[in-house]
Amino acid sequence: MRGNKFGKLFSFVTFGESHGEALGVVLDGVSAGLDFSLEALQLELDRRAPGRVAGTTNRKEADKAEVLSGIFEGKTLGTPIAVIVRNTNQRSKDYDKLKTEYRPGHADETTQNKYGIRDHRGGGRSSGRETLARVIAGYFAGLMIPKIKVRAYISKMGPFESTVEELREREDISPYNFPNTDKNTEIKKYLLGLKANGESVGGRISVLIEGTPVGLGEPAFDKLKADFAKSLLSIGACVSFSFGLGEEMANLMGSEVSTQRGNFGGIEGGISNGEDIFLTTTFKPTSTVGEKAKEGRHDPCILPRAVPVVEAMVKCVLADHLLRQRAYGDGVINE
Amino acid sequence: MRGNKFGKLFSFVTFGESHGEALGVVLDGVSAGLDFSLEALQLELDRRAPGRVAGTTNRKEADKAEVLSGIFEGKTLGTPIAVIVRNTNQRSKDYDKLKTEYRPGHADETTQNKYGIRDHRGGGRSSGRETLARVIAGYFAGLMIPKIKVRAYISKMGPFESTVEELREREDISPYNFPNTDKNTEIKKYLLGLKANGESVGGRISVLIEGTPVGLGEPAFDKLKADFAKSLLSIGACVSFSFGLGEEMANLMGSEVSTQRGNFGGIEGGISNGEDIFLTTTFKPTSTVGEKAKEGRHDPCILPRAVPVVEAMVKCVLADHLLRQRAYGDGVINE
Amino acid sequence: MRGNKFGKLFSFVTFGESHGEALGVVLDGVSAGLDFSLEALQLELDRRAPGRVAGTTNRKEADKAEVLSGIFEGKTLGTPIAVIVRNTNQRSKDYDKLKTEYRPGHADETTQNKYGIRDHRGGGRSSGRETLARVIAGYFAGLMIPKIKVRAYISKMGPFESTVEELREREDISPYNFPNTDKNTEIKKYLLGLKANGESVGGRISVLIEGTPVGLGEPAFDKLKADFAKSLLSIGACVSFSFGLGEEMANLMGSEVSTQRGNFGGIEGGISNGEDIFLTTTFKPTSTVGEKAKEGRHDPCILPRAVPVVEAMVKCVLADHLLRQRAYGDGVINE
Amino acid sequence: MRGNKFGKLFSFVTFGESHGEALGVVLDGVSAGLDFSLEALQLELDRRAPGRVAGTTNRKEADKAEVLSGIFEGKTLGTPIAVIVRNTNQRSKDYDKLKTEYRPGHADETTQNKYGIRDHRGGGRSSGRETLARVIAGYFAGLMIPKIKVRAYISKMGPFESTVEELREREDISPYNFPNTDKNTEIKKYLLGLKANGESVGGRISVLIEGTPVGLGEPAFDKLKADFAKSLLSIGACVSFSFGLGEEMANLMGSEVSTQRGNFGGIEGGISNGEDIFLTTTFKPTSTVGEKAKEGRHDPCILPRAVPVVEAMVKCVLADHLLRQRAYGDGVINE
Repeated sequence: MRGNKFGKLFSFVTFGESHGEALGVVLDGVSAGLDFSLEALQLELDRRAPGRVAGTTNRKEADKAEVLSGIFEGKTLGTPIAVIVRNTNQRSKDYDKLKTEYRPGHADETTQNKYGIRDHRGGGRSSGRETLARVIAGYFAGLMIPKIKVRAYISKMGPFESTVEELREREDISPYNFPNTDKNTEIKKYLLGLKANGESVGGRISVLIEGTPVGLGEPAFDKLKADFAKSLLSIGACVSFSFGLGEEMANLMGSEVSTQRGNFGGIEGGISNGEDIFLTTTFKPTSTVGEKAKEGRHDPCILPRAVPVVEAMVKCVLADHLLRQRAYGDGVINE
Repeated sequence: MRGNKFGKLFSFVTFGESHGEALGVVLDGVSAGLDFSLEALQLELDRRAPGRVAGTTNRKEADKAEVLSGIFEGKTLGTPIAVIVRNTNQRSKDYDKLKTEYRPGHADETTQNKYGIRDHRGGGRSSGRETLARVIAGYFAGLMIPKIKVRAYISKMGPFESTVEELREREDISPYNFPNTDKNTEIKKYLLGLKANGESVGGRISVLIEGTPVGLGEPAFDKLKADFAKSLLSIGACVSFSFGLGEEMANLMGSEVSTQRGNFGGIEGGISNGEDIFLTTTFKPTSTVGEKAKEGRHDPCILPRAVPVVEAMVKCVLADHLLRQRAYGDGVINE
Repeated sequence: MRGNKFGKLFSFVTFGESHGEALGVVLDGVSAGLDFSLEALQLELDRRAPGRVAGTTNRKEADKAEVLSGIFEGKTLGTPIAVIVRNTNQRSKDYDKLKTEYRPGHADETTQNKYGIRDHRGGGRSSGRETLARVIAGYFAGLMIPKIKVRAYISKMGPFESTVEELREREDISPYNFPNTDKNTEIKKYLLGLKANGESVGGRISVLIEGTPVGLGEPAFDKLKADFAKSLLSIGACVSFSFGLGEEMANLMGSEVSTQRGNFGGIEGGISNGEDIFLTTTFKPTSTVGEKAKEGRHDPCILPRAVPVVEAMVKCVLADHLLRQRAYGDGVINE
Repeated sequence: MRGNKFGKLFSFVTFGESHGEALGVVLDGVSAGLDFSLEALQLELDRRAPGRVAGTTNRKEADKAEVLSGIFEGKTLGTPIAVIVRNTNQRSKDYDKLKTEYRPGHADETTQNKYGIRDHRGGGRSSGRETLARVIAGYFAGLMIPKIKVRAYISKMGPFESTVEELREREDISPYNFPNTDKNTEIKKYLLGLKANGESVGGRISVLIEGTPVGLGEPAFDKLKADFAKSLLSIGACVSFSFGLGEEMANLMGSEVSTQRGNFGGIEGGISNGEDIFLTTTFKPTSTVGEKAKEGRHDPCILPRAVPVVEAMVKCVLADHLLRQRAYGDGVINE
């Protein structure tokens, strides 16, 4: 009830401070009998890992997943699945000065005021490291929705922009999660330049969801769009969410919109209509700038590493709604 | 668990189809001993009521609130509060043709597919009428947070735009909920023009929240911004949410953002920092256009009537988080 | 979150004070497309109604169910179902003296202390009348589990005792819900005698559940037996719960128990094993005794009217667990 | 949603199979700033540990608690607290024969049927080892309710019986958790005799709760008695629950009960009245009997080790209700 649980039927709780013993997740809603692969899980974590590509933090941590329960002989048991990742590279003394210093745009001061206490050695519970638990949850969500294809990508990062059409043309867009991979060299140069200047930049991450069955989402508060919004705004640096035509809708007349079903972004009345679903989010620039930002472990742009987190949250929402729809056994989805 | 419940500690469930017997709400999380006024509640409902101003639907329904439980001698009892509004002006035969006809952008087809059955006489559960239950809930949320001032307003409607500064200058902005009330005559003319042409228009509703105590919101999934996002995206026509600088963050450098605390929109690390909170949403144009839209009961623009609904949802989120913070008894908020 | 909600997937919230406008229930978890009969629902309510048989309260209220939402053309819509019962026979002045008087064994004093306010005109929220909302919920639960047969009966009331074998021999055991209906005349005489003396009596209600599929119940906290226990102890006068051999287990050796599967009461490891499930509860005597109890509306024994409430709660637990098991799609139950 | 979570505001999720890597718990509802002692936590775990006293299992496991998150410099942070216990003494080959063999009275067969898969190496998720996670949760619950004294004890074990008065006379009743410690030698002899004969025995555990504030518990479904019932029936071998006079109520007249407030067991209308609360449960005999039961690791009687588990669950319920009552800020409890 302190907000560390996500989901209703496909639900999980995450725990861990950035400089504590470990971070982790307990999933209490995964079906039994699914094939589990530690290697596949680790690959997902590696996509989020720091220090993977030039221009992101060089804080290299193993981020090695350890499964404590819920898996037996390579299959899910239907019991809670606990996975932890130990913090191995804590470098706590780097953070000592933060004890009495609050970083703007971070949770330092609000955490201190909320609880009257905090782990000052880093972001604590509000650190970006918390998102690795989400990536683990997203891996298991993916096992539940094998027919749905969820792909997040950077649609804008500083001067670089990319379209969903560019994404559709490609299967793999690593390492920067930017569809137009021809720009990779330029992006690298751009990010290294930001870093050298102690600067950071925001941008946009979009999501294309293909293969969603008709009927996911509930008509009142748990509309599919509402749960997507919550899931993505729950990511630290995310400051906006839209779906379909999004903010552009403010400039359109009804006659322009109603002609084409695709304009509704795959969701009508809060319920999936079977079309592709399209989401867009805005991420603010990393708050740490100036001399401090030139230190190794800071990301000049969070976007490349945020992409797998966005994908994970979207998958968790879909898995949850799939289970919810299945429970009641009505409508076409269950036929 | 079918998504008709909202909130955790300040929680409520809504019910009712647009052409059924009644709509209503049961609140299970209101403190005892608060002063209740049926008149004040009715005033909130009237702000949302159809047919109130020229240029909106002329479907005039009493929308009269009837309290069934939880109030005794003018005070809340701490027990569940049930309030219903009867549907008096159903005009069901108008809708008969909809039995086999699905309106684009509405929930007609998705509802049919999800459940295998629907009340075809109107939007059913997905009708805008469902929002009157939210306005009732918002009234009670307001009783829980008397020191927080929540004001929603139209920041853009077709060619008309208004700023938060214009809002700050005024106490009352009715009837269009547009801060620059000098434009009321023009707006009226504009909306009547849309109506005559069977056209509709989208826009933006923004929210200014003053007086939020420090420490509301939880660091992981139930960040204050995440719960605001969910609450507003759960409104039918809402297609985007942002807070603080919002989408503009995609175009900014860290050095531009970090200089001013106000840029974080009153929320740092998902937790309120005591500053004003600023939210913005986009609403799509009403989907019904053409000849059908010229009929009396259709709104050419949903925004004026959506403003009290937006306010209500924001209040419900704040009341919920205030109770959550109070429960644990830690931090400055409880001193 | 103030405890007026029951169930997770088959969930409902109840509301209403005994002397307020109405009592009711909103169900948010009933499948779509089920056949609804107002007559059948009313019959369930009538089984609980006061004044039905000699020896129970003569407070005759219509207890007429009114459906406000969720039903369309005789079918459930999958949307929330709201049903209310108006309080027509409030006789409030009878209760005026209770304003400053707390009845022992009732919730009068604890309610006042908990909330700092109460509706003193009767039991308020803690009145036995609250259980009519449960009976309504139980009717809908029954629609979800048509293959499971739930029968509650009085196994002991004062000097009268009856066995599950006597129940198995009969289809209908009304009006006292005592299997050995040959005793009806004696029971009537006994209850009228109690009434004349301002006396009351406790007893036991047992439940036989036939046809439960294998696999309902969860291994840790939501064991089927745990949820049955909670559901029945949530009834006002219920003071004990047991299943299978129950308290007798305290006197048995392992070798005596393990020989026969039936001894485990249909639940092993918290999960149904497909055998008949057998539950027993104890109800305390009505707290009101003496001169006051001779007044018309008091029941000398709550048991006959509690039987349909017990059945309703058991059905709600079963419906909830059936939906939960169905959601995850694993195991034999889904084949 | 698969039933591994307990509590609403003081809530926690447990995980782990008896022969997996580890068992553990994540608490998401502990206040910030409480003093934590690993030694005190370990002492609670040791009370439940196997092999502690003669006549119980000789499966000696370290059951060493490892804190992964939520504690910083000896204080709770208000963030989720994760604690794990590794399984060090798995002896899995002992259990190989169980792959195709279902033990009566255990969850073996129901688990297989429910999930279509199971960890056959032991009780898996349904093993008694799962209760160590509850003991850990109970330790933290205790930190939240320092003024409430919860003491569980064996009131009947085979031929031995003890009363609450005997408990009141003593501060410490270890090692058998039987108040009349003069019987310790006899009990030891009795249990060793059972073991030698491959026999087991059931009994009763009672609980005395002193110092509960007035006003805990909710009037409808979350009555304090109902939540106690659920919490205790969620323990594997528990087959009955009662409070106050319990089953004896079936034999009493109203006039006998209403004379003394103590007869209501500290709970009126589901809400604590400030008096001592008295609970009683029945535990069935361990299901494993015969030659198999003579092997070292089997307990001839689960009661001595179940006592700290019962205490833990009761504390968790009280902490949860204390937080719930505090949240709403009404009534005497908050003054």
